[in-house]
Amino acid sequence: MLSLSSRLVEKAVEQFATLPGIGRKTALRFVLQMLRRDKEDVETFLEAIRQLKESIRECARCHNISDGERCDICSDPKRDDTTICVVENIQDVISIESTGQFKGVYHVLGGVISPMDGVGPSDLHIATLLQRVEAPATREVIFALGATIEGDTTAYYIYKKFPRREELVITTLAKGIAVGNDLEYIDELTLGRSIVNRIRFTL
Amino acid sequence: MLSLSSRLVEKAVEQFATLPGIGRKTALRFVLQMLRRDKEDVETFLEAIRQLKESIRECARCHNISDGERCDICSDPKRDDTTICVVENIQDVISIESTGQFKGVYHVLGGVISPMDGVGPSDLHIATLLQRVEAPATREVIFALGATIEGDTTAYYIYKKFPRREELVITTLAKGIAVGNDLEYIDELTLGRSIVNRIRFTL
Repeated sequence: MLSLSSRLVEKAVEQFATLPGIGRKTALRFVLQMLRRDKEDVETFLEAIRQLKESIRECARCHNISDGERCDICSDPKRDDTTICVVENIQDVISIESTGQFKGVYHVLGGVISPMDGVGPSDLHIATLLQRVEAPATREVIFALGATIEGDTTAYYIYKKFPRREELVITTLAKGIAVGNDLEYIDELTLGRSIVNRIRFTL
Repeated sequence: MLSLSSRLVEKAVEQFATLPGIGRKTALRFVLQMLRRDKEDVETFLEAIRQLKESIRECARCHNISDGERCDICSDPKRDDTTICVVENIQDVISIESTGQFKGVYHVLGGVISPMDGVGPSDLHIATLLQRVEAPATREVIFALGATIEGDTTAYYIYKKFPRREELVITTLAKGIAVGNDLEYIDELTLGRSIVNRIRFTL
């Protein structure tokens, strides 16, 4: 047990320890570093978090986090509005954006259907997605949900509600072996799928 | 590279990434957790750090961090004022306090003599230590500095300035094998010292 002889330090350690994956020892390191910093430096730190909490909004179109009415992606004229990538949460947007491989727009559901966790379809941003998909401009919807029962259920539930339009293509993420993986460490289900869904070899 | 589509998030991530050992990925996890929290919850978090920075002081006697004029240890009547443990920094106070094995008081030097880092004796709280040691009530001074050249140099420098009083005992931390260590992994210097300074076997 860490024995701190100051209530102020104790409180700050307690607060830092509420961050995910941070224990009291690491929290104490944060606190000691804060004590060594300039006052303005700490003020900048606090201000960034306060601003974040006070000013961040939800994009009126895709439910991504946003600094304004629409998020940077939705308001970027270079993005392809006809392709909507459906994801579970904002972290997934960041992950896909970080690949640099997608130039369409997103729709953040805010979760997946999970009766175990009490999450039903009405808890998710499905109605606004259906509105967007019904617009004739929409050409493709990509389900980029986790390869879990909940992810599959959610995709299936939403898919059933989509309008049947010939030009509307519905896709999902390719499942297969991860880049850099040795075959012997891959689970049978994934390996099986990657054989069934094999793709043309290119150099 | 993490691609964040919000400047507010970007700024908050940048700030969390200034914490020791925290990269952008972990910083983003902190930010997303902050976004999920209640406003009051975030306010409590910010307030604890602001309070820490604004109100914390240095103990007028031992230079430990303190909520008031004197730190909790110095103002605790149950602590033994006659034994002063000399440490490098406040982190060392916390470490020793956490052992629960020491009931005396501390003196935080604020560093060790290190010409390489431009730290000389005048940069440390040595004068106030000498004042405390000169008080006849002081019976023992324990040098609890790191087992490094700088630690040894600092202890030697201060020791030479101590008054020669018969009742004044000067001690230092025992050096030896760590609890739980196998002999084969211990460096020769430490093992050698632990044989020379062997202690009586007790059950």
